[in-house]
Amino acid sequence: MDQPQKTDAFSPIAWEDSTLLLLDQTLLPREEVWLRCRQPEEVADAICRLAVRGAPAIGVAAAYGLVLGLLGADSRDGSEESARFEATFRLLAATRPTAVNLRWALEQGRRELGQKPPGVSAAEHLLAWARRLQAEDLAACRAMGEWGASLFAPGNRVLTHCNAGALATAGYGTAVGVITSAFRQGKVSLVFVDETRPLLQGARLTAWELGRLDIPHRLVTDSSVGALMSRGLVDRVVVGADRIARNGDAANKIGTYTVAVLAARHGVPFYVAAPRSTIDLATATGADIPIEERAEDEVKNLGGLAVAPPATRALNFAFDVTPAELIAAIITEEGIHLPPYEHSLLPR
Amino acid sequence: MDQPQKTDAFSPIAWEDSTLLLLDQTLLPREEVWLRCRQPEEVADAICRLAVRGAPAIGVAAAYGLVLGLLGADSRDGSEESARFEATFRLLAATRPTAVNLRWALEQGRRELGQKPPGVSAAEHLLAWARRLQAEDLAACRAMGEWGASLFAPGNRVLTHCNAGALATAGYGTAVGVITSAFRQGKVSLVFVDETRPLLQGARLTAWELGRLDIPHRLVTDSSVGALMSRGLVDRVVVGADRIARNGDAANKIGTYTVAVLAARHGVPFYVAAPRSTIDLATATGADIPIEERAEDEVKNLGGLAVAPPATRALNFAFDVTPAELIAAIITEEGIHLPPYEHSLLPR
Repeated sequence: MDQPQKTDAFSPIAWEDSTLLLLDQTLLPREEVWLRCRQPEEVADAICRLAVRGAPAIGVAAAYGLVLGLLGADSRDGSEESARFEATFRLLAATRPTAVNLRWALEQGRRELGQKPPGVSAAEHLLAWARRLQAEDLAACRAMGEWGASLFAPGNRVLTHCNAGALATAGYGTAVGVITSAFRQGKVSLVFVDETRPLLQGARLTAWELGRLDIPHRLVTDSSVGALMSRGLVDRVVVGADRIARNGDAANKIGTYTVAVLAARHGVPFYVAAPRSTIDLATATGADIPIEERAEDEVKNLGGLAVAPPATRALNFAFDVTPAELIAAIITEEGIHLPPYEHSLLPR
Repeated sequence: MDQPQKTDAFSPIAWEDSTLLLLDQTLLPREEVWLRCRQPEEVADAICRLAVRGAPAIGVAAAYGLVLGLLGADSRDGSEESARFEATFRLLAATRPTAVNLRWALEQGRRELGQKPPGVSAAEHLLAWARRLQAEDLAACRAMGEWGASLFAPGNRVLTHCNAGALATAGYGTAVGVITSAFRQGKVSLVFVDETRPLLQGARLTAWELGRLDIPHRLVTDSSVGALMSRGLVDRVVVGADRIARNGDAANKIGTYTVAVLAARHGVPFYVAAPRSTIDLATATGADIPIEERAEDEVKNLGGLAVAPPATRALNFAFDVTPAELIAAIITEEGIHLPPYEHSLLPR
């Protein structure tokens, strides 16, 4: 049943020779091209245009972005390092508003810098931290997988939205990690993959990952979910999250809320899998989560092809909020969190 | 407030010099190409590949298709006309299973043929009938528009799915006809247009029609509907139907059911607009409506561009069924039908 270790350990982020390597996810599944970032501006650009995406992966990429901003700084001059750090922090923090892991990683980087021992350059110190962060994210995904699998029954047909897989993390994935672990335990017979318009992360990325893992799957349009559930074809839903508020409300890719409402109507358990770093205890409810609105052209075009009349305006919210009442369980590396989330999400 | 008559009277179907002209809807909005059908096989092909689509338009196109099958038959030989009719009937009936208007038009054509007076060719007789059918469908759409507009309040923001406009009918449209009439009465401030994957009838056709009618609209991905409703941006939903069962269950483009479930959750009235010919009293409930499953490639490709890995399988239901309990009213040319539909849908 076990998959080969190479697919298992797949990560879209690597560090090599003072360079951050990012698998350009905008080109998948047709091309596997690795971006070589030597400047933090290149990392910021990669985040903005979704070459690297997924809340945990953005956090890890931003950590390495901080390192790039510090490379070559005079390590005898604390004020230069500090100024460089703050400029890089601002640059990266401005890229995307919804994913809390970005801000969380940057703030953790600042604390880490404050603890730098003398005689070590800031870049060197933060590089060790970024590597640790990446390893921790991977370990968290594996733990989520194990916890999450315990919620599945043999032969379950699972639906997922967008991509919360290895590509969205340091490896293994959150929602896809749960599916992978459950599959290895014989608990998943089929995965329905929402294509996830406008940028088709489901069709392009999740289908690609499940293919590599030899997990049986079927691609569907986002608007097929209701038909699938009304035919009794879906037993579980598991998705990732970009930010989870203190009360359990979860922001995730646009369309997630729609899936949750359908799941509730059809009595299908709806799970969110995300690392602890996605839980933002400073945000009381989903209403306080900023929702990114992206370019109209993402909707009006597809792969360079215009699909709507030129004069037509579009509206493109990148995320929506699923209220806690629709979420049966939140899976983190710490375990299964059940409602009421005000209590179960508090640090243990 | 009035729109110029030319846009108003727009029809995707015309008859000219023994030829059926069909606006090729697969090429819109980029190109306006009229197919010239001289053989019933060409009409069947146009229906199969959705060059003409929308239940009422399919019915009218099929009526003219019967005429094409009879052109040139020896009018002194009743058995030749009859054989040609039956062969054309079978050819056209096999094109699409869900829309009941197709079958309805063909059956009506058979009855009409039985009433042909002597000395008139079958082709001539059925042509007069097909023209009448087309005129009646247009009149039905205008009546639906007036009835439907009465359900709207000033300034309503309306959402529609797929294309139930002039292009889906003999002109004016069912759901879009209702929106057009309500707009002219000052009752519509904005229309949200679901793009409607996989074939994007919303983005390509409804947006194009609303642009021609100068009705303010915004294109959204299908999975945005939940976010729009949870922000309180939608006051009414109106869609068309391909078949309505005796109990009011309505089959329509995949994704319609999802919109209805969201509308119910958010207390947004959900209306179905369709001519009487769409109501199939011989079908008891939605469970008895055959649902067409179309090619996987419609999901895996977009405009010739592959969007998923080659090995990935897709599942492509073309329609779903919205249960009557989620439908606030069914609008036909006869008026507003309210629940319980078992009673209100019976012939008056």
